[in-house]
Amino acid sequence: MSKYKQIREEAYEANMQLPKLGLVLFTFGNVSAADRELGVFAIKPSGVPYEELSPKKMVIVDFEGVTVEGKLRPSSDTLTHAVLYKHWEKVGGIVHTHSTYATAWAQTLRSIPNYGTTHADHTTVDIPCAPPMSDEMIQGNYEYETGFQIMNCLAEKGFSYEEVEMILVGNHAPFTWGKTPAKAVYNSAVLENIAHMAYLSEQIRPHNPKMKDALIKKHFERKHGPDSYYGQ
Amino acid sequence: MSKYKQIREEAYEANMQLPKLGLVLFTFGNVSAADRELGVFAIKPSGVPYEELSPKKMVIVDFEGVTVEGKLRPSSDTLTHAVLYKHWEKVGGIVHTHSTYATAWAQTLRSIPNYGTTHADHTTVDIPCAPPMSDEMIQGNYEYETGFQIMNCLAEKGFSYEEVEMILVGNHAPFTWGKTPAKAVYNSAVLENIAHMAYLSEQIRPHNPKMKDALIKKHFERKHGPDSYYGQ
Amino acid sequence: MSKYKQIREEAYEANMQLPKLGLVLFTFGNVSAADRELGVFAIKPSGVPYEELSPKKMVIVDFEGVTVEGKLRPSSDTLTHAVLYKHWEKVGGIVHTHSTYATAWAQTLRSIPNYGTTHADHTTVDIPCAPPMSDEMIQGNYEYETGFQIMNCLAEKGFSYEEVEMILVGNHAPFTWGKTPAKAVYNSAVLENIAHMAYLSEQIRPHNPKMKDALIKKHFERKHGPDSYYGQ
Amino acid sequence: MSKYKQIREEAYEANMQLPKLGLVLFTFGNVSAADRELGVFAIKPSGVPYEELSPKKMVIVDFEGVTVEGKLRPSSDTLTHAVLYKHWEKVGGIVHTHSTYATAWAQTLRSIPNYGTTHADHTTVDIPCAPPMSDEMIQGNYEYETGFQIMNCLAEKGFSYEEVEMILVGNHAPFTWGKTPAKAVYNSAVLENIAHMAYLSEQIRPHNPKMKDALIKKHFERKHGPDSYYGQ
Repeated sequence: MSKYKQIREEAYEANMQLPKLGLVLFTFGNVSAADRELGVFAIKPSGVPYEELSPKKMVIVDFEGVTVEGKLRPSSDTLTHAVLYKHWEKVGGIVHTHSTYATAWAQTLRSIPNYGTTHADHTTVDIPCAPPMSDEMIQGNYEYETGFQIMNCLAEKGFSYEEVEMILVGNHAPFTWGKTPAKAVYNSAVLENIAHMAYLSEQIRPHNPKMKDALIKKHFERKHGPDSYYGQ
Repeated sequence: MSKYKQIREEAYEANMQLPKLGLVLFTFGNVSAADRELGVFAIKPSGVPYEELSPKKMVIVDFEGVTVEGKLRPSSDTLTHAVLYKHWEKVGGIVHTHSTYATAWAQTLRSIPNYGTTHADHTTVDIPCAPPMSDEMIQGNYEYETGFQIMNCLAEKGFSYEEVEMILVGNHAPFTWGKTPAKAVYNSAVLENIAHMAYLSEQIRPHNPKMKDALIKKHFERKHGPDSYYGQ
Repeated sequence: MSKYKQIREEAYEANMQLPKLGLVLFTFGNVSAADRELGVFAIKPSGVPYEELSPKKMVIVDFEGVTVEGKLRPSSDTLTHAVLYKHWEKVGGIVHTHSTYATAWAQTLRSIPNYGTTHADHTTVDIPCAPPMSDEMIQGNYEYETGFQIMNCLAEKGFSYEEVEMILVGNHAPFTWGKTPAKAVYNSAVLENIAHMAYLSEQIRPHNPKMKDALIKKHFERKHGPDSYYGQ
Repeated sequence: MSKYKQIREEAYEANMQLPKLGLVLFTFGNVSAADRELGVFAIKPSGVPYEELSPKKMVIVDFEGVTVEGKLRPSSDTLTHAVLYKHWEKVGGIVHTHSTYATAWAQTLRSIPNYGTTHADHTTVDIPCAPPMSDEMIQGNYEYETGFQIMNCLAEKGFSYEEVEMILVGNHAPFTWGKTPAKAVYNSAVLENIAHMAYLSEQIRPHNPKMKDALIKKHFERKHGPDSYYGQ
């Protein structure tokens, strides 16, 4: 077990952040942590309450979705994680939640417009909402296809997974990712916050205009551009 | 008292979950736990604050609504519980709350449309809202009739209580049930969450379309179908 | 000091409930507790943070609004309390807060319609909203006139202070009262809950219809009528 | 280090209030504390989580924005603070947050109308929203220009920074200030509360009318006028 120790602990710690950040009710969420060298990821077991989790209970799965180690059944969303890890080489962590505001947007099939710097600090574009899949994809290998639906949505919009680390899956809920599981969890909390404020802004001002391009660019680049000056 | 010990403790534990889950203000809610062999249920005493509850204070009532054991007066909603236990043989727990979002929907007499997988994970249909009773029923044996109003609403819509474990009572508030009191409490929290997100979705997109049938079926069956693969 | 000990402690305990129930930000609220035999009430000192309160810091004031005992200045709303105690003989406690949802309704000058049993469990009528005072009253003895504005609003609508224990003061915020300070605080929390749910119901269903009279009557009377059967 | 000890501690204490008051997610906020005699201020280091802060980690900066002492990089918003301190001689503390409701208003470019006494207790005017800057200002010395944008907005409306201690920066988020850092934090919490209630009031009553002038004046003056009688 020792060679998976680090990702088990990373996955455990990251999963435990979800209830602390108010992003999950009961077991409605999961985080995975990848080890790129070993070609596997650790993921939350399916349906196990957060208070009963431990690093040991994390399930080790390869990028084809095959369980490599662990007695428990992995999250029912495991194949979505596997597909994304397989195709996105620089991703080290993936999160799925049903957080309230982001999920409410997903249920409308609308992308979240970029209304302010809180949003632009994290991405220049509207948070995309992938359309629901065809009936064939749903009835087929559903969770596997969900991964492709996410990738296709980004591809159609011309976004790279390194620029845009969050997406809504239509009628379902958000997925986020990042270089580490901790960053992916951070992105889930940011997305929920952005979703909350965009909802409020549209209530306060129907047909709310988006922010100007210069401001979007400025805020994104002060955190992420080559001359970024946010943080230490 | 020992023969009722288990349901007293189950009812106590389940009642104490309501404030923890943010589903009740003061004493506005109650849970009961049935013992099918003994033909009785344990229910919260009326108007007693949660912090003063104990297993011993739970009141034992039979399926006609007659108190069998206990010094305190049972919940004012006891007859509704009794009617439902009498007619629904596989139900082991019933919950009534005035949780904020579910009650707000009940106050509009609208059913909650199925907008996403969080909803479809739990039921394929819209959460029904039973219409207010006739004046005669209200002025008669009100709580007893509430039980029939719930059953009639399900019957008219062709739903079985095993498929649909939650309902709104028009102008009043939600009732949920399940095989165990813990499952019934879980359903109350899920209903509140669904109610919150459906409300938000309609604000974000007026005339929000419902989700497609294939996706509803998929999500319900991965948790509840013969080939379900959620959980351990 | 000993003869005021009980109301000092009652007022202290009741004031401390406001932050616990989420009804106040900083010092935006106050509770008083009356001693009818002594013709005085104990009230929160003005602008003192809740965490620095103690029974000893409560200020003793008579029903004319004159401070009888205490080194601190009483709440700036003291004269409103005094007027109400003077005219309402059976009131033992009064609460003023700026709780979010009730205050939002007060800011619209609308009464809160009776949409459900949570409301009807406490009063049969819409929660009244007193109109803003005339400029003369505002520029005169403002807090004193606020008491009269509250009484006049009830009188015009034909409500007695014993039937209706809560009111919104237009463009300002709610006041509630009761036989005891604890009951008055309970009423403030109930009002906030009712205000929240009525707001949501109108969002979910614009032009939401009110509930039927028979149901209003039933719920009020099962808690407050001569044959009430709620509680112990 | 000893000569900056007091502002380090004031800035630390004030920064730690932001998460306690629910005004920040992660590191999305900062407070500074000025020493007028020394011509410097202490400010939160950029991107450092609140739980890792200490007085020692506060960065000392002069009113030109030059770091005087401290190993960490100061907040990315430091130049905005510097400009305001330089021009506003009586300000001792400045706060920037992305608090949910205030930021939602900022994202709509609307000022917050004065709908009630909670608002009027703090300022007589609508909370101004500074328009987004020109592209040139954004692409130039952005944070420095943000300070001027704030001052220009107040100047255009004829407000002094002593009368109005809070502003929304369009498409961005709120800034507040005060004679002390503690007062500036207080203003941030008040602004969030006002923003929340104004939003709700407009939902409850579209085209909600503003409150009457006499009431605005009365409430402001009872807290802030020459004859104020609020507090001790």
